[in-house]
Amino acid sequence: MTTARRDTYTPESLLSVAVQVFNERGYDGTSMEHLSKAAGISKSSIYHHVAGKEELLQRAVSRALDGLFSVLDEPGAVRGRAVERVEYVTRRTVEVLVDELPYVTLLLRVRGNTRTERWALERRREFDHQVAELLKAAAADGDLRADVDIRLATRLLFGMVNSLVEWYRPHPGTTPGQLADAVVHMAFDGLRTARP
Amino acid sequence: MTTARRDTYTPESLLSVAVQVFNERGYDGTSMEHLSKAAGISKSSIYHHVAGKEELLQRAVSRALDGLFSVLDEPGAVRGRAVERVEYVTRRTVEVLVDELPYVTLLLRVRGNTRTERWALERRREFDHQVAELLKAAAADGDLRADVDIRLATRLLFGMVNSLVEWYRPHPGTTPGQLADAVVHMAFDGLRTARP
Repeated sequence: MTTARRDTYTPESLLSVAVQVFNERGYDGTSMEHLSKAAGISKSSIYHHVAGKEELLQRAVSRALDGLFSVLDEPGAVRGRAVERVEYVTRRTVEVLVDELPYVTLLLRVRGNTRTERWALERRREFDHQVAELLKAAAADGDLRADVDIRLATRLLFGMVNSLVEWYRPHPGTTPGQLADAVVHMAFDGLRTARP
Repeated sequence: MTTARRDTYTPESLLSVAVQVFNERGYDGTSMEHLSKAAGISKSSIYHHVAGKEELLQRAVSRALDGLFSVLDEPGAVRGRAVERVEYVTRRTVEVLVDELPYVTLLLRVRGNTRTERWALERRREFDHQVAELLKAAAADGDLRADVDIRLATRLLFGMVNSLVEWYRPHPGTTPGQLADAVVHMAFDGLRTARP
């Protein structure tokens, strides 16, 4: 028997529990029963807060997407040379990813079986597209190497950045800012000193 | 009712079907029933070839791991400056990944619930470790930028390379060799032309 605790959840704190369960079991593999157990409150208490698990998913991926898209409106993303803007966006994307780790993790694992998942995939593609446009503008300015294939570079850049959700764990040695610098430096300047 | 077809499988061709099912359903989510349906032969026919699904997993991830580890013994990986060797290994890793896409995909999704999965994770870590050692040697030679954190660079490099299993699909425009060049160029030289 589960001892239900008094429902002291806010929409925010319930979301945080739900996202953890979604990330552990997968969204498809999570039932309202699982959420009720993890939160320690009854299913009807959960329904008091949200219409169902899809609403929780929608709120969670919105939080990740809002964080990412707001980067594109920051002064560093809209002013200056395109190459500086795309570096800025890359740096800030890493920081948002670290700040909102469970939410972005969920976003990146979404597969597209429900309306909300398809919408999230569509928004992710739109974000990637905007970064690709910045890379294209940087190439047109002559600031990217002539042999860079923009489509491929965009994929590899996000491959590098998004891999953080698989292995990054906060630790005292590295701040999110240092992590972001390492990503930008590697992607834009490369690991090598000048070639002979 | 399933119409069982005559068992004309070789260990190789049965493995190829199994890997596809594992990648679609996840290894944990795959039963002998699923494998039997996908292969169109009875479970007892499958048991004629292998002791069970863990043996199929073991063969599949071994194929990926053998491909990756054999790169480390190739002349380009053992002779010359460390930075050239690590670039060579990166390039060949991408090629192996593309050549053995379903097998490496499975390897990268392994989570560690069974003995075989834990073994596979251990071997992956060993491979990453050997690449990290090459990067360390390249740094000691002065061929990597002084600010490169080797541990972080190894993670980001594999993040970039391994992301291929999520989005790469063979298409006429890009050969595996061109893809490998793009990865090496971005990781080691960066996307930018010289900074002002």
